[in-house]
Amino acid sequence: MGEFEFDADTHLSGDGPVFGTDLSDRWDAMAGVNGGYMLALCAQALGQALPFPDPLVVSGFYLRPGSHGPGEVRTEVLRAGMTTAFGQASLWQGGKERVRATAAFTDLSANGAPGQPRYTGVAAPALPPPGECFGLLPGSLPGAPIADRIEYRSTEEPGWLRGQPSGNPAGEFWMRFRDGREPDLAAMPLFVDAAAPVALEVGVLSTTIELTVHLRARPAPGWLACRAVTRYVADGYHEEDFEIWDSAGTLVAQSRQLALILR
Amino acid sequence: MGEFEFDADTHLSGDGPVFGTDLSDRWDAMAGVNGGYMLALCAQALGQALPFPDPLVVSGFYLRPGSHGPGEVRTEVLRAGMTTAFGQASLWQGGKERVRATAAFTDLSANGAPGQPRYTGVAAPALPPPGECFGLLPGSLPGAPIADRIEYRSTEEPGWLRGQPSGNPAGEFWMRFRDGREPDLAAMPLFVDAAAPVALEVGVLSTTIELTVHLRARPAPGWLACRAVTRYVADGYHEEDFEIWDSAGTLVAQSRQLALILR
Repeated sequence: MGEFEFDADTHLSGDGPVFGTDLSDRWDAMAGVNGGYMLALCAQALGQALPFPDPLVVSGFYLRPGSHGPGEVRTEVLRAGMTTAFGQASLWQGGKERVRATAAFTDLSANGAPGQPRYTGVAAPALPPPGECFGLLPGSLPGAPIADRIEYRSTEEPGWLRGQPSGNPAGEFWMRFRDGREPDLAAMPLFVDAAAPVALEVGVLSTTIELTVHLRARPAPGWLACRAVTRYVADGYHEEDFEIWDSAGTLVAQSRQLALILR
Repeated sequence: MGEFEFDADTHLSGDGPVFGTDLSDRWDAMAGVNGGYMLALCAQALGQALPFPDPLVVSGFYLRPGSHGPGEVRTEVLRAGMTTAFGQASLWQGGKERVRATAAFTDLSANGAPGQPRYTGVAAPALPPPGECFGLLPGSLPGAPIADRIEYRSTEEPGWLRGQPSGNPAGEFWMRFRDGREPDLAAMPLFVDAAAPVALEVGVLSTTIELTVHLRARPAPGWLACRAVTRYVADGYHEEDFEIWDSAGTLVAQSRQLALILR
C-alpha cells in the first residue's frame, strides 16, 4: 500500500487514552530497540491525545529496554492551555513500563513570522553535498537494521567504523529516510538518536538513561544536516548533544541525552 | 536554629508518597517563584521516595506558575533497579498541578574511581578569583530576592544590568549561597536556574517551559564556577545551556532549558 516504513512502524491502534502498538525490529541499532524510536512512539500517542499538532519538547526516561512485539502507550493529559498543552506517555510491554515520557505540544505553524527576536550563535553544519560524501550501503552494518532504514552521509568514514577511533567525540553528517519519506517533527525523536553515538570515537559504549528533544521548527523536505557532540565523559556517564538542521538551513531539532557507559 | 535558608525552604513534611511543602518567596526572580527552586523541591521529595541518595537526571515541565505558600509534592516510584531508580514527582498547589518532574537517582559516591573512561572537551570557566570580580550587594535587585540568597561574581557587570545588552547571550560567573551553606547535588536544580537568563543580553525576556539537569558528580565545598549560553533564539523560543563546575575543577551539573519568549 506504499506506506512508509516509519509510519507503518509507529502506527497506533485505539482512540486513547491507551493506544496499542507493535515494536518493530527494523530500527534496532546493536543495542536492541532504539530509544529514539520508542520516544517517537510516545510522542505519536501524545499528538493524538493533545489538542495541538506539534511537539515542542519531548523528554523520555528509559526504565527498561524495549522488546520487539506488542505493547501499549498510556497517555495522560496534564494540562491543555491556550497555546501549550502538556502530556505524559508511558510505553508498557509485558506488564512492565519501558519508557516514561513527558511532553509539551503547541502549534508551530506561525514559525518564521517576521519581527520575532532571532539569534544564531552557531551556524548550520558546513558539509559537502551528500553525493560527494561517504555513505553506507544497506546491509553493510549487520545487527543495525536502522542503517537500512536511514541513510547517512559524512565527509569520511567514521574512525570507530574503521577500527580507529578518532579521539574526538563529535561529528557532522547528513541523514534522511531511505524510502523517500520526508522529515517531519514526528520523526525527530528518532533521528536525534539514530546515528551511532559519537562517544564511540573515544571507545565508549553506552546506553541511554534519558533523552530530551526540543523541536524548534517544522522541517522542510530534503536531507537533514546533523551535528553531534559529546563534551564530557566521566565517572561512568556521558552526555550527547544533537542538532538537526533542515534543507532550508533552519534548526529544527536539538537534543541532549545522558548515557550510562557499559563496562 | 541556624538552619540554612535553602534547607528551611525545601523542608518537606510527611513520610510520602505525598509530601507537604511551603513555597517561600525568598527565591523569586522577577517572574515569581523560581523554576529551579520548584524543581529542587521535586528532587528533594524523590530523594526520600527512592532508594538511592543522588539525583542523576531531573527533568521538569512547567505546567503553571507556582505561588507562595502551601503545596504538596506527590511522588511515584517508577522503577527501583539495582543501580538506578526512576521516579516521578508533581508539585500541586490549590488543586492544580504546577510542575511535573521525572528523575533518575543513583549512588555517585564511587565518583572519581580510577580506570574509568574520561574525556573533557571544554575546560572549566577561567575566571579571576571571586574577590577580584564584580558582585551585587544584597538588596540591590528589587523584585529578585534570590539575589539576596545567592551571591554572584562576574568579571564585569552584565550589560543588560547596565541597560546595555551586549548582544552575546553567554556568560561565565561564580555563584554560592550567601549564608554559607555548601553546595550539594540537592541544590543544583536551583543553581542552574538561579542566574539571570543570558538571553537578556539580546533583549529577550522569557519563561521556562522545560528544564533538564544532569548531575555529574558530588560538588566539593566552595564557590561554583558557572557557564551559561543560549545558542539559538528563534520563532518565539530559546534554549539555555548551563554548566556548574566545583572548586576542585570538576563538572558537577549540566542543564538545558527551553524557554518561551514573552512579548
